[in-house]
Amino acid sequence: MNVLIVLAHPEPQSFNGALFDTAVSTLHEAGHHVATSDLYRMGFNPVSGRHNFTTVKDPAFLKLQVEESHASETHGFALDIEAELQKLEAADVMIWQFPLWWFGLPAILKGWVDRVFAMGRVYGYGHIYDTGRFRDKRALLSLTTGGPAEAYVPGGFNGDLDAILRPIHRGMLQFTGFSVLQPAVHWQPAHVEPAARQDWLDAWAERLRHIEQEAPIEVGQY
Amino acid sequence: MNVLIVLAHPEPQSFNGALFDTAVSTLHEAGHHVATSDLYRMGFNPVSGRHNFTTVKDPAFLKLQVEESHASETHGFALDIEAELQKLEAADVMIWQFPLWWFGLPAILKGWVDRVFAMGRVYGYGHIYDTGRFRDKRALLSLTTGGPAEAYVPGGFNGDLDAILRPIHRGMLQFTGFSVLQPAVHWQPAHVEPAARQDWLDAWAERLRHIEQEAPIEVGQY
Repeated sequence: MNVLIVLAHPEPQSFNGALFDTAVSTLHEAGHHVATSDLYRMGFNPVSGRHNFTTVKDPAFLKLQVEESHASETHGFALDIEAELQKLEAADVMIWQFPLWWFGLPAILKGWVDRVFAMGRVYGYGHIYDTGRFRDKRALLSLTTGGPAEAYVPGGFNGDLDAILRPIHRGMLQFTGFSVLQPAVHWQPAHVEPAARQDWLDAWAERLRHIEQEAPIEVGQY
Repeated sequence: MNVLIVLAHPEPQSFNGALFDTAVSTLHEAGHHVATSDLYRMGFNPVSGRHNFTTVKDPAFLKLQVEESHASETHGFALDIEAELQKLEAADVMIWQFPLWWFGLPAILKGWVDRVFAMGRVYGYGHIYDTGRFRDKRALLSLTTGGPAEAYVPGGFNGDLDAILRPIHRGMLQFTGFSVLQPAVHWQPAHVEPAARQDWLDAWAERLRHIEQEAPIEVGQY
């Protein structure tokens, strides 16, 4: 399989970094082709704008979807976006490795979606949800939290994690056709001893060795 | 009142730009002090990292909450963050003006939250949700959508907008203590004629003239 792993954490020594490294080496050893986007290391710019494109459809008024559609027809994406598009299009499985910040993606990853998930090339023109262009692909969120598991249940301090993740699962991944795999949630790694962290990394590696056989989950609709 | 209006749109001529301009002039004319953060125009960097700070707590390992807490004790925020913190702290009412992108905030605004909502100065140490530092402040989301209103109802094409906005209302605004005002949702302005758009701007201005009296809404918990 082709696997794309996207990392959004500023500290390579973090548990997110360790989960990313584990995924890269495990999937490589399992014989898969692994592409990566380590967004902080790449200095990825998450701000969507005219610099997404080498082409211009309307110089007088910037409407991103218009420019995206035009760029899709004319090979007009900037090099950094084109490179990400090609990784995305080649992937059979995509993994996002990130810390949950403010009930969502870190901005560097949200902006990767804003810029790379372009109308025309990625979605639209009849390709959305069940007819999405990526309906043969699967995606998996691997995230860390600052709070404990019991804070993220219905009625808990922060509330149901499935509902917190729904805008990502439903609005970004299923919207573009991805099937969603069970998220890998690593609770409060900052509060966990090194031995337990190694157990978590081993379990993550073991799961990834069988990722090819994993079936998608149902994601609740709104 | 002190009002802070944050805009996250790359095109000043957009309907988001018009809503922003209307809010600035209306609230100014009503006698309020209006501060603004036009994030695209400012070239705001939404990527959280060591550049948030002038101080360093741990040079060997970057944990943002540790650095935020340290910076909060030592006046150690970078100038761009300190400026936003002062606007945020002074505000009685905060308005976010943005297009809904991928069921969430544009990255430039998500990263404004990631960087400015700092542990210590903004939340934590017993200040969270009902005990949040900003519990005397109110916040209002003013957003535009690409889809029609009927797509954003329970069971609709995209689903219940209230649930889509919950990570913002609950996880960012109420988390830091804000009371939440009814969001102002402008459906598909790209598909609306200029006369109707002017009616919307007039209605927006009329609402803002009475914003001081508005009561918060209940936000569903998870």
